[in-house]
Amino acid sequence: MDITDLGKRILAGERRALARGITLVESHRADHRARATDLLEWLGQHGRQALRIGLSGTPGVGKSTFIESFGMMLIGQGQRVAVLAVDPSSTRSGGSILGDKTRMDRLSREPAAFIRPSPSQTHLGGVARRSREAVALCEAAGFDVVLIETVGVGQSETVVAEMSDLFLLLLAPAGGDELQGVKRGIMEMADLILVNKADGDLKPAATRTCSDYAGALRLLRKRIQDPAGFPKAMMVSAMQESGLTEAWDEMRTLVGWRKENGHWNGRRSAQSRYWFNEDVRQALLARLQEDGVRAEMQRLGDLVASGEMTPSSAAREVLQAHLAR
Amino acid sequence: MDITDLGKRILAGERRALARGITLVESHRADHRARATDLLEWLGQHGRQALRIGLSGTPGVGKSTFIESFGMMLIGQGQRVAVLAVDPSSTRSGGSILGDKTRMDRLSREPAAFIRPSPSQTHLGGVARRSREAVALCEAAGFDVVLIETVGVGQSETVVAEMSDLFLLLLAPAGGDELQGVKRGIMEMADLILVNKADGDLKPAATRTCSDYAGALRLLRKRIQDPAGFPKAMMVSAMQESGLTEAWDEMRTLVGWRKENGHWNGRRSAQSRYWFNEDVRQALLARLQEDGVRAEMQRLGDLVASGEMTPSSAAREVLQAHLAR
Repeated sequence: MDITDLGKRILAGERRALARGITLVESHRADHRARATDLLEWLGQHGRQALRIGLSGTPGVGKSTFIESFGMMLIGQGQRVAVLAVDPSSTRSGGSILGDKTRMDRLSREPAAFIRPSPSQTHLGGVARRSREAVALCEAAGFDVVLIETVGVGQSETVVAEMSDLFLLLLAPAGGDELQGVKRGIMEMADLILVNKADGDLKPAATRTCSDYAGALRLLRKRIQDPAGFPKAMMVSAMQESGLTEAWDEMRTLVGWRKENGHWNGRRSAQSRYWFNEDVRQALLARLQEDGVRAEMQRLGDLVASGEMTPSSAAREVLQAHLAR
Repeated sequence: MDITDLGKRILAGERRALARGITLVESHRADHRARATDLLEWLGQHGRQALRIGLSGTPGVGKSTFIESFGMMLIGQGQRVAVLAVDPSSTRSGGSILGDKTRMDRLSREPAAFIRPSPSQTHLGGVARRSREAVALCEAAGFDVVLIETVGVGQSETVVAEMSDLFLLLLAPAGGDELQGVKRGIMEMADLILVNKADGDLKPAATRTCSDYAGALRLLRKRIQDPAGFPKAMMVSAMQESGLTEAWDEMRTLVGWRKENGHWNGRRSAQSRYWFNEDVRQALLARLQEDGVRAEMQRLGDLVASGEMTPSSAAREVLQAHLAR
């Protein structure tokens, strides 16, 4: 299918075209990359903006259940919802994030929902670019909300935050009186902390956890892109579907404020520039993975490891022989 | 001075030649880089190996005092000692690491000691390569021990561990019963944890802290390159100069075991390969900083930020026009 045709169908909201477009941006092949770049360029200024929501949480906090309940609530309000995953560990975990659509049984059967499992890929830089481009395609296809799920490991939150308008951190009620080892850097990224499983026996623990995090958030440095009261900690129960509309109201309040105060556009601009820089960096580094270069890196690396060459001389050789302009 | 002459003087242990060599490897100029590569290549297989000791610890734990006392003890045992610093934050902190030789008043006056302050540089990748090459020059100059100091921020420990044979973590006695927020990743790098200030009023706290860390170390996964009992936590007092020979004995035990069991050479080989790969990566990415490319990245970045171009199209343009082979 040619790019113009594919682009038109994506703009028309055809799900199969959207899926094909995402497959194209996820591809490793150089000719696919060129076509993906063409497609994104052709889609260019369609003028549609979804609300991009990043969602992080360690395994076991109930992310799938939350996405299902929250997504169904949004659809009930007339929103169209796309769900994507960024999972740098998917090769190790066997692609558990969204790997099984049955985890979101109701949502996956909704015509207004689109669910895309995580691309399997070891290299976070690559995954990140592809996921960000998949988000852009969902936006072009007219979705109102794009949920970007990630598992709480290392760098992945940073990457997801760089493609999100809002960043949610989902937590489970803590057993003791200690904050659950959530890294300060991740707390600082969150716009909303949602303590899930605020139901049944866990309700008191959830209340305590929520209050602990509310306190911790107050100690963080005030961010310019936040109105009073944000970032905020709230309780939800994905299972009982409670607290979800309240959380959604808070998100809309925050988005409205940021739009009025210029932070929405400012953040989008900064993110676009960030991804441009990242694309260039990743493309340069990808040259090291090309067949001829990789073999030479291996050969010279062996000489360096055995002490027959210095690292700097070997680097000079590979740069001059294979990576010169 | 020509490279052969400089190399000969470094091998002869001339301090001024060593200092000039380090200035050369630290330089940003392309012609200096070429000469630095030549120098390292010429020095090639001199067959000398120093013990490279990485030392990390947050400000206030007494790193300078430790280096001074430990260095003086080594010199008393007939060792020649070089001290280098890797400080990615030096532009922010004003180069506090080793910035002032008076911090190590006695050591800096010793003929058998060589102290080199941290190069000021924002980009950790660049600092790292230069520091690793400075270590290689100290080794060529016949130093027996090279101490590589870093401040405990983010990535810098990883970088220093990649150029060290041994990695020491210096800690102060903790106030409460909690481990001082030392990240697990840094604990896993340490071969020896030294709880400093085990003197006077702080002695009981140091004893408790040391025992806490000894317990924590036992919970870590056993590493193949360690004999029984390692990694280990010990108490020292840099001020009272106690515990230093005991710590040195442990280091020699560990080094001896690793040499006998092939881990010493294995680690050095792996590190050389790592630095070769890093050199190539950094050299590729450095192209983005060249004048013409940087201006074009800025111009295209502005178009991306304003929404007139997509990140992927802009990346394609800069890659084809300025970074093509």
